[in-house]
Amino acid sequence: MTGPSKIKHIGMAVSDLESAKRFYEESLGLNVEREETLGEMKIAFVPVGEVNIELIQSTTEDGVIAKFIAKRGEGVHHIAYEVEDVSSSLEELKARGVKLVDETPREGAGGTAVAFVHPKSAHGVLTELVGRKRNA
Amino acid sequence: MTGPSKIKHIGMAVSDLESAKRFYEESLGLNVEREETLGEMKIAFVPVGEVNIELIQSTTEDGVIAKFIAKRGEGVHHIAYEVEDVSSSLEELKARGVKLVDETPREGAGGTAVAFVHPKSAHGVLTELVGRKRNA
Repeated sequence: MTGPSKIKHIGMAVSDLESAKRFYEESLGLNVEREETLGEMKIAFVPVGEVNIELIQSTTEDGVIAKFIAKRGEGVHHIAYEVEDVSSSLEELKARGVKLVDETPREGAGGTAVAFVHPKSAHGVLTELVGRKRNA
Repeated sequence: MTGPSKIKHIGMAVSDLESAKRFYEESLGLNVEREETLGEMKIAFVPVGEVNIELIQSTTEDGVIAKFIAKRGEGVHHIAYEVEDVSSSLEELKARGVKLVDETPREGAGGTAVAFVHPKSAHGVLTELVGRKRNA
């Protein structure tokens, strides 16, 4: 596939969003730009250069992020890359036999197309592709 | 502390560097810029925008990366931020009671000062500070 232009964000699973925001703001000296609730997730966006750190807390006990933390503890949940076209990237990955979580793009934050590559094919890293533009 | 200007690199623990390089090059469409052996680690640097992905394989069975993989499997090992001055950042973090792996900077790849913040204080993420300039 055509190489991603940048790392779009790093998703971090946190058990207490307020406490995590305090660490990134007061200790690391970064700023929370905005917050958003997306399904069962509360997300704080912390820009660092061209990348966003997404601090993600689950709002339910059986959510994806809550399960991740129960199994592995807090930590990096996924790495997202900005690509030109998520659909064509998925087609190329499929043709190469790469295991996908999403066979077709779905709608992510801000109306962009997103899809996840399975960590089994990506050396243990849950890898997200994010379209450069909002859906046409 | 003064906020980091960017994410410098994302360190990923891999069990087979050749296989990981193939995934990032052939499937994701990125390029390995160079490789380096640093102590017990073989590292491939894969630039994506202003960030480097560092694919790290242990050259010994009891190395840090080998132990990480034995315990948790392959995956994101650490996130490194570029800061102006590692020493003064460490002083500020210490004053705030943040748990550190390195109380003083040590020399990292390319002659820059580096230091690690303990994941216990950083919501499960092994967090590295990297000085912007090579050591004077």
